[in-house]
Amino acid sequence: MEPKIESKIKKLLIESQILSHQSALSGLSPGTRLYDAIDYHLSYPGSGARMSLSLAASLALDISPERAAHLAAAVESLHNASLIQDDLQDRDALRRGKPAVWKKFGPDLAINATDLLLSNAYALVASIGGVTSGQQLISTMHQAVVKTLQGQTKDLSHNQSESVTEGIAVAADKSGPLFSLSLQLPLILAGYENCVDLAGETGSLFGVGYQIFDDIQDLSKDRFAGNHFNLAQLVNEKGLSGIPGNRAEDLAHSYLAQALKSASKLPNGCANLLCENCVTLLAMLEKEAA
Amino acid sequence: MEPKIESKIKKLLIESQILSHQSALSGLSPGTRLYDAIDYHLSYPGSGARMSLSLAASLALDISPERAAHLAAAVESLHNASLIQDDLQDRDALRRGKPAVWKKFGPDLAINATDLLLSNAYALVASIGGVTSGQQLISTMHQAVVKTLQGQTKDLSHNQSESVTEGIAVAADKSGPLFSLSLQLPLILAGYENCVDLAGETGSLFGVGYQIFDDIQDLSKDRFAGNHFNLAQLVNEKGLSGIPGNRAEDLAHSYLAQALKSASKLPNGCANLLCENCVTLLAMLEKEAA
Repeated sequence: MEPKIESKIKKLLIESQILSHQSALSGLSPGTRLYDAIDYHLSYPGSGARMSLSLAASLALDISPERAAHLAAAVESLHNASLIQDDLQDRDALRRGKPAVWKKFGPDLAINATDLLLSNAYALVASIGGVTSGQQLISTMHQAVVKTLQGQTKDLSHNQSESVTEGIAVAADKSGPLFSLSLQLPLILAGYENCVDLAGETGSLFGVGYQIFDDIQDLSKDRFAGNHFNLAQLVNEKGLSGIPGNRAEDLAHSYLAQALKSASKLPNGCANLLCENCVTLLAMLEKEAA
Repeated sequence: MEPKIESKIKKLLIESQILSHQSALSGLSPGTRLYDAIDYHLSYPGSGARMSLSLAASLALDISPERAAHLAAAVESLHNASLIQDDLQDRDALRRGKPAVWKKFGPDLAINATDLLLSNAYALVASIGGVTSGQQLISTMHQAVVKTLQGQTKDLSHNQSESVTEGIAVAADKSGPLFSLSLQLPLILAGYENCVDLAGETGSLFGVGYQIFDDIQDLSKDRFAGNHFNLAQLVNEKGLSGIPGNRAEDLAHSYLAQALKSASKLPNGCANLLCENCVTLLAMLEKEAA
Protein backbone atom coordinates (compact mmCIF):
# COMPACT_ATOMS: atom_id res chain seq x y z
CA MET A 1 0.00 0.00 0.00
CA GLU A 2 1.28 3.47 -0.89
CA PRO A 3 2.65 5.38 2.14
CA LYS A 4 0.37 8.32 1.32
CA ILE A 5 -2.76 6.16 1.45
CA GLU A 6 -1.49 4.35 4.52
CA SER A 7 -1.10 7.60 6.42
CA LYS A 8 -4.55 8.74 5.25
CA ILE A 9 -6.05 5.52 6.62
CA LYS A 10 -4.18 5.91 9.92
CA LYS A 11 -5.55 9.42 10.34
CA LEU A 12 -9.09 8.36 9.48
CA LEU A 13 -8.77 5.36 11.78
CA ILE A 14 -8.36 7.66 14.77
CA GLU A 15 -11.26 9.84 13.63
CA SER A 16 -13.50 6.80 13.13
CA GLN A 17 -12.52 5.45 16.55
CA ILE A 18 -13.50 8.73 18.18
CA LEU A 19 -16.74 8.89 16.19
CA SER A 20 -17.67 5.34 17.20
CA HIS A 21 -16.92 6.14 20.85
CA GLN A 22 -18.70 9.51 20.98
CA SER A 23 -21.81 8.41 19.08
CA ALA A 24 -22.23 5.44 21.45
CA LEU A 25 -22.25 7.74 24.48
CA SER A 26 -24.47 10.44 23.02
CA GLY A 27 -27.96 10.28 24.49
CA LEU A 28 -26.72 8.63 27.69
CA SER A 29 -26.36 10.60 30.91
CA PRO A 30 -22.71 10.81 32.03
CA GLY A 31 -22.08 9.11 35.35
CA THR A 32 -24.76 6.45 34.85
CA ARG A 33 -23.68 2.81 34.89
CA LEU A 34 -24.53 2.21 31.23
CA TYR A 35 -22.49 5.25 30.18
CA ASP A 36 -19.56 4.12 32.32
CA ALA A 37 -19.64 0.53 31.04
CA ILE A 38 -19.60 1.60 27.39
CA ASP A 39 -17.03 4.34 27.97
CA TYR A 40 -14.81 1.81 29.76
CA HIS A 41 -14.92 -0.75 26.97
CA LEU A 42 -14.31 1.80 24.22
CA SER A 43 -11.44 3.46 26.10
CA TYR A 44 -9.25 0.41 25.37
CA PRO A 45 -9.60 0.03 21.60
CA GLY A 46 -8.22 -2.88 19.59
CA SER A 47 -6.14 -2.69 16.42
CA GLY A 48 -9.12 -1.59 14.33
CA ALA A 49 -8.55 -4.27 11.69
CA ARG A 50 -12.13 -4.12 10.39
CA MET A 51 -12.18 -0.32 10.43
CA SER A 52 -8.93 -0.21 8.44
CA LEU A 53 -10.36 -2.59 5.82
CA SER A 54 -13.48 -0.47 5.56
CA LEU A 55 -11.55 2.81 5.32
CA ALA A 56 -9.19 1.44 2.68
CA ALA A 57 -12.17 0.27 0.62
CA SER A 58 -13.92 3.63 0.97
CA LEU A 59 -10.84 5.58 -0.12
CA ALA A 60 -10.30 3.29 -3.12
CA LEU A 61 -13.94 3.87 -4.09
CA ASP A 62 -13.71 7.68 -3.80
CA ILE A 63 -16.05 7.95 -0.83
CA SER A 64 -15.59 11.18 1.14
CA PRO A 65 -13.53 10.92 4.37
CA GLU A 66 -16.55 11.85 6.49
CA ARG A 67 -18.75 9.13 5.03
CA ALA A 68 -15.88 6.65 5.16
CA ALA A 69 -15.48 7.36 8.88
CA HIS A 70 -19.20 6.77 9.51
CA LEU A 71 -19.14 3.39 7.76
CA ALA A 72 -15.98 2.33 9.62
CA ALA A 73 -17.37 3.52 12.97
CA ALA A 74 -20.55 1.51 12.36
CA VAL A 75 -18.60 -1.70 11.68
CA GLU A 76 -16.48 -1.03 14.79
CA SER A 77 -19.63 -0.53 16.88
CA LEU A 78 -20.93 -3.95 15.77
CA HIS A 79 -17.53 -5.50 16.43
CA ASN A 80 -17.41 -4.11 19.96
CA ALA A 81 -20.97 -5.30 20.61
CA SER A 82 -19.93 -8.81 19.59
CA LEU A 83 -16.80 -8.71 21.78
CA ILE A 84 -18.69 -7.67 24.92
CA GLN A 85 -21.28 -10.37 24.28
CA ASP A 86 -18.68 -13.05 23.45
CA ASP A 87 -16.77 -12.36 26.65
CA LEU A 88 -19.98 -12.66 28.67
CA GLN A 89 -21.12 -15.86 26.99
CA ASP A 90 -17.66 -17.48 27.11
CA ARG A 91 -17.06 -16.14 30.62
CA ASP A 92 -13.74 -14.70 29.46
CA ALA A 93 -12.58 -12.49 32.34
CA LEU A 94 -10.09 -10.42 30.33
CA ARG A 95 -10.37 -8.29 27.20
CA ARG A 96 -7.40 -6.32 25.88
CA GLY A 97 -5.58 -6.94 29.16
CA LYS A 98 -8.34 -5.46 31.33
CA PRO A 99 -11.37 -6.99 33.06
CA ALA A 100 -14.13 -7.63 30.51
CA VAL A 101 -17.29 -5.52 30.81
CA TRP A 102 -19.37 -8.35 32.36
CA LYS A 103 -16.61 -8.96 34.91
CA LYS A 104 -16.31 -5.31 35.90
CA PHE A 105 -19.93 -4.15 35.62
CA GLY A 106 -21.90 -7.42 35.79
CA PRO A 107 -23.70 -9.49 33.13
CA ASP A 108 -26.78 -7.24 32.90
CA LEU A 109 -24.70 -4.20 32.03
CA ALA A 110 -22.80 -6.21 29.41
CA ILE A 111 -26.14 -7.18 27.85
CA ASN A 112 -27.41 -3.59 27.79
CA ALA A 113 -24.10 -2.23 26.45
CA THR A 114 -24.22 -4.78 23.62
CA ASP A 115 -27.73 -3.68 22.66
CA LEU A 116 -26.72 -0.05 22.66
CA LEU A 117 -23.66 -0.60 20.45
CA LEU A 118 -25.72 -2.69 18.03
CA SER A 119 -28.33 0.04 17.79
CA ASN A 120 -25.62 2.68 17.45
CA ALA A 121 -24.26 0.98 14.34
CA TYR A 122 -27.59 1.55 12.57
CA ALA A 123 -27.75 5.15 13.73
CA LEU A 124 -24.23 5.78 12.37
CA VAL A 125 -25.04 4.39 8.93
CA ALA A 126 -28.38 6.21 8.82
CA SER A 127 -26.70 9.49 9.74
CA ILE A 128 -24.98 9.55 6.35
CA GLY A 129 -27.32 11.99 4.66
CA GLY A 130 -28.33 12.38 1.04
CA VAL A 131 -27.77 8.83 -0.15
CA THR A 132 -30.11 6.70 -2.22
CA SER A 133 -28.62 3.45 -0.96
CA GLY A 134 -29.61 3.88 2.70
CA GLN A 135 -32.10 1.05 2.49
CA GLN A 136 -29.53 -1.43 1.17
CA LEU A 137 -26.84 -0.34 3.62
CA ILE A 138 -29.17 -1.17 6.50
CA SER A 139 -30.53 -4.42 5.09
CA THR A 140 -26.98 -5.66 4.36
CA MET A 141 -25.96 -4.72 7.88
CA HIS A 142 -28.94 -6.61 9.29
CA GLN A 143 -28.01 -9.71 7.27
CA ALA A 144 -24.48 -9.54 8.70
CA VAL A 145 -25.90 -9.28 12.24
CA VAL A 146 -28.23 -12.25 11.68
CA LYS A 147 -25.39 -14.38 10.33
CA THR A 148 -23.07 -13.42 13.19
CA LEU A 149 -25.77 -14.24 15.76
CA GLN A 150 -26.40 -17.57 14.10
CA GLY A 151 -22.66 -18.29 14.28
CA GLN A 152 -22.49 -17.15 17.91
CA THR A 153 -25.39 -19.42 18.80
CA LYS A 154 -23.80 -22.44 17.13
CA ASP A 155 -20.50 -21.50 18.79
CA LEU A 156 -22.14 -21.80 22.22
CA SER A 157 -22.77 -25.48 21.76
CA HIS A 158 -19.98 -26.59 19.49
CA ASN A 159 -17.19 -28.77 20.72
CA GLN A 160 -14.15 -30.76 19.73
CA SER A 161 -16.23 -33.78 18.76
CA GLU A 162 -17.97 -32.18 15.77
CA SER A 163 -16.86 -32.52 12.15
CA VAL A 164 -14.32 -30.17 10.52
CA THR A 165 -17.03 -29.11 8.05
CA GLU A 166 -19.28 -28.00 10.91
CA GLY A 167 -16.38 -26.19 12.61
CA ILE A 168 -15.62 -24.29 9.41
CA ALA A 169 -19.29 -23.36 8.96
CA VAL A 170 -19.41 -21.87 12.46
CA ALA A 171 -16.19 -19.90 11.84
CA ALA A 172 -17.61 -18.61 8.54
CA ASP A 173 -20.82 -17.43 10.23
CA LYS A 174 -19.16 -16.01 13.32
CA SER A 175 -16.00 -14.38 11.99
CA GLY A 176 -16.87 -13.74 8.35
CA PRO A 177 -19.79 -11.26 8.32
CA LEU A 178 -18.02 -8.25 9.85
CA PHE A 179 -15.04 -8.62 7.49
CA SER A 180 -17.55 -8.88 4.63
CA LEU A 181 -19.46 -5.86 5.86
CA SER A 182 -16.26 -3.77 5.98
CA LEU A 183 -16.11 -4.15 2.20
CA GLN A 184 -19.84 -4.32 1.43
CA LEU A 185 -20.86 -0.99 2.98
CA PRO A 186 -18.36 1.08 0.93
CA LEU A 187 -19.24 -0.90 -2.21
CA ILE A 188 -22.97 -0.21 -1.76
CA LEU A 189 -22.39 3.47 -1.03
CA ALA A 190 -20.23 3.77 -4.16
CA GLY A 191 -22.92 2.13 -6.30
CA TYR A 192 -21.36 -1.32 -6.69
CA GLU A 193 -24.40 -3.26 -5.41
CA ASN A 194 -23.55 -6.05 -7.86
CA CYS A 195 -20.36 -6.80 -5.89
CA VAL A 196 -22.05 -7.37 -2.52
CA ASP A 197 -22.10 -11.16 -2.87
CA LEU A 198 -18.46 -11.35 -3.93
CA ALA A 199 -17.47 -9.15 -1.01
CA GLY A 200 -19.53 -11.41 1.26
CA GLU A 201 -17.71 -14.49 -0.03
CA THR A 202 -14.33 -12.75 0.34
CA GLY A 203 -14.98 -11.80 3.96
CA SER A 204 -16.19 -15.29 4.75
CA LEU A 205 -13.08 -16.96 3.27
CA PHE A 206 -10.82 -14.51 5.09
CA GLY A 207 -12.75 -14.99 8.33
CA VAL A 208 -12.26 -18.76 8.24
CA GLY A 209 -8.61 -18.50 7.20
CA TYR A 210 -7.89 -15.94 9.91
CA GLN A 211 -9.74 -17.98 12.56
CA ILE A 212 -7.68 -21.11 11.82
CA PHE A 213 -4.48 -19.02 11.75
CA ASP A 214 -5.36 -17.51 15.11
CA ASP A 215 -6.20 -20.91 16.60
CA ILE A 216 -2.83 -22.24 15.36
CA GLN A 217 -1.10 -19.40 17.23
CA ASP A 218 -3.12 -20.25 20.35
CA LEU A 219 -2.02 -23.89 20.11
CA SER A 220 1.65 -23.15 19.46
CA LYS A 221 1.85 -20.55 22.21
CA ASP A 222 0.06 -22.74 24.76
CA ARG A 223 -2.67 -20.11 24.90
CA PHE A 224 -5.27 -22.83 24.33
CA ALA A 225 -7.39 -22.69 27.46
CA GLY A 226 -9.19 -26.00 27.07
CA ASN A 227 -12.69 -24.59 27.55
CA HIS A 228 -12.51 -22.85 24.17
CA PHE A 229 -13.24 -24.58 20.93
CA ASN A 230 -10.12 -24.62 18.74
CA LEU A 231 -10.63 -25.19 15.02
CA ALA A 232 -6.94 -25.84 14.34
CA GLN A 233 -6.87 -28.57 16.95
CA LEU A 234 -10.00 -30.12 15.48
CA VAL A 235 -8.44 -30.17 12.01
CA ASN A 236 -5.22 -31.72 13.32
CA GLU A 237 -7.17 -34.38 15.22
CA LYS A 238 -9.73 -35.30 12.59
CA GLY A 239 -7.70 -34.75 9.45
CA LEU A 240 -9.09 -33.30 6.27
CA SER A 241 -9.45 -35.24 3.08
CA GLY A 242 -8.42 -33.52 -0.12
CA ILE A 243 -5.88 -31.17 1.48
CA PRO A 244 -2.27 -32.38 1.21
CA GLY A 245 -0.78 -33.02 4.62
CA ASN A 246 -4.10 -32.78 6.42
CA ARG A 247 -2.79 -30.11 8.75
CA ALA A 248 -4.47 -26.98 10.10
CA GLU A 249 -1.69 -24.94 8.46
CA ASP A 250 -2.70 -26.31 5.06
CA LEU A 251 -6.34 -25.48 5.63
CA ALA A 252 -5.52 -21.95 6.76
CA HIS A 253 -3.30 -21.60 3.67
CA SER A 254 -6.09 -22.81 1.42
CA TYR A 255 -8.66 -20.37 2.82
CA LEU A 256 -6.33 -17.37 2.82
CA ALA A 257 -5.25 -18.11 -0.77
CA GLN A 258 -8.90 -18.31 -1.83
CA ALA A 259 -9.67 -15.05 0.02
CA LEU A 260 -6.76 -13.37 -1.78
CA LYS A 261 -8.03 -14.55 -5.15
CA SER A 262 -11.59 -13.48 -4.40
CA ALA A 263 -10.52 -10.08 -3.00
CA SER A 264 -8.47 -9.27 -6.08
CA LYS A 265 -11.62 -9.48 -8.21
CA LEU A 266 -13.31 -6.61 -6.36
CA PRO A 267 -13.39 -3.26 -8.20
CA ASN A 268 -10.87 -0.39 -7.92
CA GLY A 269 -8.53 -2.44 -5.71
CA CYS A 270 -10.94 -1.75 -2.86
CA ALA A 271 -9.84 -4.92 -1.05
CA ASN A 272 -6.10 -4.34 -1.49
CA LEU A 273 -5.57 -4.09 2.26
CA LEU A 274 -7.33 -7.43 2.77
CA CYS A 275 -5.06 -8.86 0.05
CA GLU A 276 -2.03 -7.52 1.92
CA ASN A 277 -3.31 -9.10 5.13
CA CYS A 278 -3.68 -12.43 3.34
CA VAL A 279 -0.15 -12.21 1.95
CA THR A 280 1.27 -11.40 5.39
CA LEU A 281 -0.52 -14.32 7.04
CA LEU A 282 0.44 -16.71 4.22
CA ALA A 283 4.10 -15.69 4.59
CA MET A 284 3.94 -16.28 8.34
CA LEU A 285 2.47 -19.75 7.77
CA GLU A 286 5.24 -20.60 5.31
CA LYS A 287 7.91 -19.28 7.66
CA GLU A 288 6.56 -21.39 10.50
CA ALA A 289 6.42 -24.45 8.25
CA ALA A 290 10.05 -24.01 7.14
CA MET B 1 -63.27 5.02 17.56
CA GLU B 2 -65.44 4.36 14.49
CA PRO B 3 -66.25 0.65 14.00
CA LYS B 4 -64.94 0.82 10.42
CA ILE B 5 -61.53 2.09 11.53
CA GLU B 6 -61.48 -0.33 14.44
CA SER B 7 -61.97 -3.30 12.12
CA LYS B 8 -59.30 -1.93 9.76
CA ILE B 9 -56.85 -1.75 12.67
CA LYS B 10 -57.72 -5.28 13.80
CA LYS B 11 -57.06 -6.63 10.31
CA LEU B 12 -53.75 -4.74 10.04
CA LEU B 13 -52.79 -5.85 13.53
CA ILE B 14 -52.80 -9.48 12.40
CA GLU B 15 -50.84 -8.62 9.25
CA SER B 16 -48.26 -6.64 11.26
CA GLN B 17 -47.95 -9.48 13.76
CA ILE B 18 -47.22 -11.95 10.94
CA LEU B 19 -44.78 -9.52 9.30
CA SER B 20 -42.91 -9.01 12.58
CA HIS B 21 -42.73 -12.78 13.11
CA GLN B 22 -41.70 -13.73 9.57
CA SER B 23 -39.12 -10.97 9.14
CA ALA B 24 -37.45 -12.01 12.41
CA LEU B 25 -37.04 -15.58 11.19
CA SER B 26 -35.91 -14.75 7.66
CA GLY B 27 -32.19 -15.31 7.24
CA LEU B 28 -32.10 -17.93 10.02
CA SER B 29 -31.91 -21.64 9.26
CA PRO B 30 -35.06 -23.45 10.43
CA GLY B 31 -34.38 -26.02 13.12
CA THR B 32 -31.48 -24.10 14.66
CA ARG B 33 -31.75 -23.06 18.31
CA LEU B 34 -31.88 -19.34 17.55
CA TYR B 35 -34.70 -19.86 15.04
CA ASP B 36 -36.60 -22.01 17.53
CA ALA B 37 -36.17 -19.56 20.42
CA ILE B 38 -37.47 -16.62 18.39
CA ASP B 39 -40.25 -18.62 16.78
CA TYR B 40 -41.31 -19.82 20.25
CA HIS B 41 -41.49 -16.33 21.75
CA LEU B 42 -43.35 -14.84 18.79
CA SER B 43 -45.84 -17.72 18.64
CA TYR B 44 -47.49 -16.42 21.83
CA PRO B 45 -48.15 -12.78 21.01
CA GLY B 46 -49.43 -10.20 23.47
CA SER B 47 -52.31 -7.79 22.98
CA GLY B 48 -50.35 -5.67 20.52
CA ALA B 49 -51.10 -2.43 22.37
CA ARG B 50 -48.14 -0.57 20.84
CA MET B 51 -48.84 -1.93 17.36
CA SER B 52 -52.47 -0.80 17.62
CA LEU B 53 -51.40 2.71 18.62
CA SER B 54 -48.99 2.84 15.72
CA LEU B 55 -51.51 1.51 13.20
CA ALA B 56 -54.20 3.93 14.37
CA ALA B 57 -51.76 6.83 13.99
CA SER B 58 -50.70 5.68 10.52
CA LEU B 59 -54.30 5.36 9.29
CA ALA B 60 -55.18 8.81 10.68
CA LEU B 61 -52.17 10.22 8.82
CA ASP B 62 -53.07 8.57 5.49
CA ILE B 63 -50.09 6.23 5.45
CA SER B 64 -50.60 3.19 3.20
CA PRO B 65 -51.56 -0.08 4.95
CA GLU B 66 -48.32 -1.75 3.86
CA ARG B 67 -46.12 1.01 5.27
CA ALA B 68 -48.27 1.18 8.41
CA ALA B 69 -47.73 -2.56 8.95
CA HIS B 70 -43.96 -2.17 8.62
CA LEU B 71 -43.83 0.60 11.23
CA ALA B 72 -46.04 -1.36 13.62
CA ALA B 73 -44.04 -4.55 13.11
CA ALA B 74 -40.83 -2.65 13.87
CA VAL B 75 -42.20 -1.30 17.15
CA GLU B 76 -43.43 -4.80 18.05
CA SER B 77 -39.99 -6.25 17.30
CA LEU B 78 -38.40 -3.77 19.73
CA HIS B 79 -41.09 -4.51 22.31
CA ASN B 80 -40.47 -8.26 22.10
CA ALA B 81 -36.71 -7.71 22.36
CA SER B 82 -37.27 -5.75 25.58
CA LEU B 83 -39.60 -8.42 27.01
CA ILE B 84 -37.15 -11.29 26.43
CA GLN B 85 -34.37 -9.22 27.99
CA ASP B 86 -36.50 -8.04 30.91
CA ASP B 87 -37.52 -11.60 31.77
CA LEU B 88 -33.87 -12.68 31.70
CA GLN B 89 -32.64 -9.79 33.83
CA ASP B 90 -35.53 -10.01 36.31
CA ARG B 91 -35.36 -13.83 36.28
CA ASP B 92 -39.10 -13.94 35.56
CA ALA B 93 -39.81 -17.56 34.70
CA LEU B 94 -43.12 -16.98 32.93
CA ARG B 95 -44.16 -14.81 30.00
CA ARG B 96 -47.73 -14.90 28.66
CA GLY B 97 -48.41 -18.03 30.70
CA LYS B 98 -45.49 -19.99 29.19
CA PRO B 99 -41.85 -20.42 30.23
CA ALA B 100 -39.85 -17.31 29.29
CA VAL B 101 -37.22 -17.70 26.55
CA TRP B 102 -34.26 -17.70 28.99
CA LYS B 103 -36.01 -20.36 31.09
CA LYS B 104 -36.74 -22.62 28.12
CA PHE B 105 -33.66 -22.04 25.95
CA GLY B 106 -31.12 -20.66 28.44
CA PRO B 107 -29.76 -17.12 29.06
CA ASP B 108 -27.39 -17.09 26.04
CA LEU B 109 -30.21 -17.79 23.61
CA ALA B 110 -32.31 -15.07 25.23
CA ILE B 111 -29.43 -12.62 24.71
CA ASN B 112 -28.98 -13.57 21.05
CA ALA B 113 -32.73 -13.51 20.36
CA THR B 114 -32.92 -10.00 21.84
CA ASP B 115 -30.12 -8.80 19.55
CA LEU B 116 -31.80 -10.27 16.51
CA LEU B 117 -35.18 -8.67 17.25
CA LEU B 118 -33.52 -5.32 17.88
CA SER B 119 -31.69 -5.53 14.57
CA ASN B 120 -34.86 -6.70 12.84
CA ALA B 121 -36.68 -3.53 13.87
CA TYR B 122 -34.17 -1.44 11.90
CA ALA B 123 -34.42 -3.75 8.88
CA LEU B 124 -38.22 -3.43 8.92
CA VAL B 125 -38.17 0.36 8.96
CA ALA B 126 -35.45 0.50 6.31
CA SER B 127 -37.43 -1.84 4.05
CA ILE B 128 -40.00 0.91 3.51
CA GLY B 129 -38.79 2.08 0.14
CA GLY B 130 -38.93 5.45 -1.54
CA VAL B 131 -39.07 7.66 1.52
CA THR B 132 -37.05 10.77 2.20
CA SER B 133 -37.44 10.46 5.96
CA GLY B 134 -35.55 7.16 6.35
CA GLN B 135 -32.72 8.86 8.16
CA GLN B 136 -35.00 10.42 10.78
CA LEU B 137 -37.04 7.25 11.25
CA ILE B 138 -33.86 5.38 12.17
CA SER B 139 -32.34 8.08 14.36
CA THR B 140 -35.63 8.47 16.28
CA MET B 141 -35.77 4.70 16.75
CA HIS B 142 -32.19 4.71 18.04
CA GLN B 143 -33.02 7.45 20.54
CA ALA B 144 -35.95 5.36 21.80
CA VAL B 145 -33.66 2.33 22.19
CA VAL B 146 -31.04 4.36 24.08
CA LYS B 147 -33.66 5.77 26.45
CA THR B 148 -35.21 2.35 27.05
CA LEU B 149 -31.79 0.83 27.78
CA GLN B 150 -31.00 3.66 30.17
CA GLY B 151 -34.31 2.99 31.94
CA GLN B 152 -33.69 -0.75 32.00
CA THR B 153 -30.25 -0.19 33.49
CA LYS B 154 -31.59 2.09 36.23
CA ASP B 155 -34.41 -0.41 36.79
CA LEU B 156 -31.85 -3.13 37.59
CA SER B 157 -30.65 -1.28 40.65
CA HIS B 158 -33.67 0.66 41.80
CA ASN B 159 -35.48 -0.25 44.95
CA GLN B 160 -38.22 0.76 47.34
CA SER B 161 -35.93 3.13 49.21
CA GLU B 162 -35.46 5.65 46.40
CA SER B 163 -37.46 8.85 45.95
CA VAL B 164 -40.77 9.00 44.08
CA THR B 165 -39.18 11.41 41.60
CA GLU B 166 -36.47 8.86 40.78
CA GLY B 167 -39.08 6.09 40.47
CA ILE B 168 -41.07 8.18 38.01
CA ALA B 169 -37.95 9.00 35.97
CA VAL B 170 -37.15 5.30 35.60
CA ALA B 171 -40.74 4.51 34.55
CA ALA B 172 -40.62 7.34 31.99
CA ASP B 173 -37.36 6.02 30.49
CA LYS B 174 -38.31 2.37 30.58
CA SER B 175 -41.99 2.38 29.61
CA GLY B 176 -42.34 5.64 27.71
CA PRO B 177 -40.11 5.37 24.60
CA LEU B 178 -41.94 2.57 22.80
CA PHE B 179 -45.33 4.25 23.29
CA SER B 180 -43.73 7.45 22.00
CA LEU B 181 -42.20 5.66 19.04
CA SER B 182 -45.58 4.17 18.08
CA LEU B 183 -46.71 7.73 17.38
CA GLN B 184 -43.40 9.23 16.25
CA LEU B 185 -42.69 6.87 13.35
CA PRO B 186 -46.04 7.50 11.59
CA LEU B 187 -45.70 11.24 12.24
CA ILE B 188 -42.22 11.34 10.68
CA LEU B 189 -43.28 9.26 7.68
CA ALA B 190 -46.26 11.58 7.13
CA GLY B 191 -44.03 14.66 7.23
CA TYR B 192 -44.91 15.92 10.73
CA GLU B 193 -41.31 16.04 12.01
CA ASN B 194 -42.24 19.10 14.08
CA CYS B 195 -44.51 16.92 16.24
CA VAL B 196 -41.86 14.37 17.25
CA ASP B 197 -41.14 16.03 20.61
CA LEU B 198 -44.83 16.36 21.51
CA ALA B 199 -45.36 12.69 20.61
CA GLY B 200 -42.34 11.84 22.76
CA GLU B 201 -43.79 13.73 25.71
CA THR B 202 -47.20 12.11 25.20
CA GLY B 203 -45.75 8.59 25.20
CA SER B 204 -43.68 9.36 28.26
CA LEU B 205 -46.69 10.67 30.24
CA PHE B 206 -48.78 7.69 29.18
CA GLY B 207 -45.96 5.27 30.01
CA VAL B 208 -45.67 6.60 33.56
CA GLY B 209 -49.46 6.72 34.06
CA TYR B 210 -49.87 3.20 32.71
CA GLN B 211 -46.98 1.89 34.84
CA ILE B 212 -48.48 3.26 38.06
CA PHE B 213 -51.92 1.97 37.05
CA ASP B 214 -50.44 -1.50 36.40
CA ASP B 215 -48.56 -1.46 39.70
CA ILE B 216 -51.79 -0.52 41.51
CA GLN B 217 -53.47 -3.58 39.97
CA ASP B 218 -50.52 -5.73 41.09
CA LEU B 219 -50.87 -4.42 44.65
CA SER B 220 -54.65 -4.83 44.83
CA LYS B 221 -54.58 -8.32 43.35
CA ASP B 222 -51.74 -9.47 45.58
CA ARG B 223 -49.66 -9.99 42.45
CA PHE B 224 -46.83 -8.03 44.03
CA ALA B 225 -44.02 -10.56 44.20
CA GLY B 226 -41.75 -8.68 46.59
CA ASN B 227 -38.65 -8.90 44.41
CA HIS B 228 -40.11 -6.46 41.89
CA PHE B 229 -39.99 -2.74 42.31
CA ASN B 230 -43.53 -1.33 42.59
CA LEU B 231 -43.98 2.37 41.88
CA ALA B 232 -47.50 2.49 43.33
CA GLN B 233 -46.28 1.07 46.61
CA LEU B 234 -43.42 3.60 46.69
CA VAL B 235 -45.88 6.47 46.17
CA ASN B 236 -48.19 5.18 48.88
CA GLU B 237 -45.31 4.79 51.31
CA LYS B 238 -43.46 8.03 50.64
CA GLY B 239 -46.36 10.31 49.79
CA LEU B 240 -46.26 12.95 47.15
CA SER B 241 -46.41 16.63 47.88
CA GLY B 242 -48.66 18.73 45.70
CA ILE B 243 -51.06 15.93 44.74
CA PRO B 244 -54.28 15.89 46.80
CA GLY B 245 -54.59 12.68 48.79
CA ASN B 246 -51.01 11.66 48.15
CA ARG B 247 -52.11 8.32 46.79
CA ALA B 248 -50.79 6.29 43.86
CA GLU B 249 -54.27 6.50 42.28
CA ASP B 250 -54.03 10.29 42.25
CA LEU B 251 -50.62 10.21 40.64
CA ALA B 252 -51.78 7.74 37.97
CA HIS B 253 -54.80 9.99 37.38
CA SER B 254 -52.58 13.04 37.03
CA TYR B 255 -50.26 11.41 34.47
CA LEU B 256 -53.06 9.87 32.41
CA ALA B 257 -54.96 13.18 32.35
CA GLN B 258 -51.79 14.97 31.17
CA ALA B 259 -51.20 12.28 28.52
CA LEU B 260 -54.77 12.73 27.30
CA LYS B 261 -54.32 16.49 27.04
CA SER B 262 -50.98 16.15 25.27
CA ALA B 263 -52.26 13.46 22.86
CA SER B 264 -55.21 15.55 21.81
CA LYS B 265 -52.83 18.23 20.49
CA LEU B 266 -51.29 15.86 17.92
CA PRO B 267 -52.43 16.38 14.31
CA ASN B 268 -55.29 14.60 12.49
CA GLY B 269 -56.44 12.84 15.66
CA CYS B 270 -53.50 10.47 15.18
CA ALA B 271 -53.37 9.71 18.92
CA ASN B 272 -57.12 9.15 19.33
CA LEU B 273 -56.59 5.53 20.32
CA LEU B 274 -54.13 6.60 23.02
CA CYS B 275 -56.76 9.14 24.19
CA GLU B 276 -59.32 6.33 24.37
CA ASN B 277 -56.89 4.22 26.39
CA CYS B 278 -56.39 7.12 28.82
CA VAL B 279 -60.15 7.60 29.21
CA THR B 280 -60.65 3.87 29.87
CA LEU B 281 -57.90 3.77 32.51
CA LEU B 282 -59.14 7.00 34.14
CA ALA B 283 -62.67 5.57 34.36
CA MET B 284 -61.32 2.38 35.97
CA LEU B 285 -59.39 4.44 38.52
CA GLU B 286 -62.53 6.44 39.37
CA LYS B 287 -64.65 3.31 39.62
CA GLU B 288 -62.15 1.73 41.98
CA ALA B 289 -62.02 4.90 44.07
CA ALA B 290 -65.84 5.01 44.39
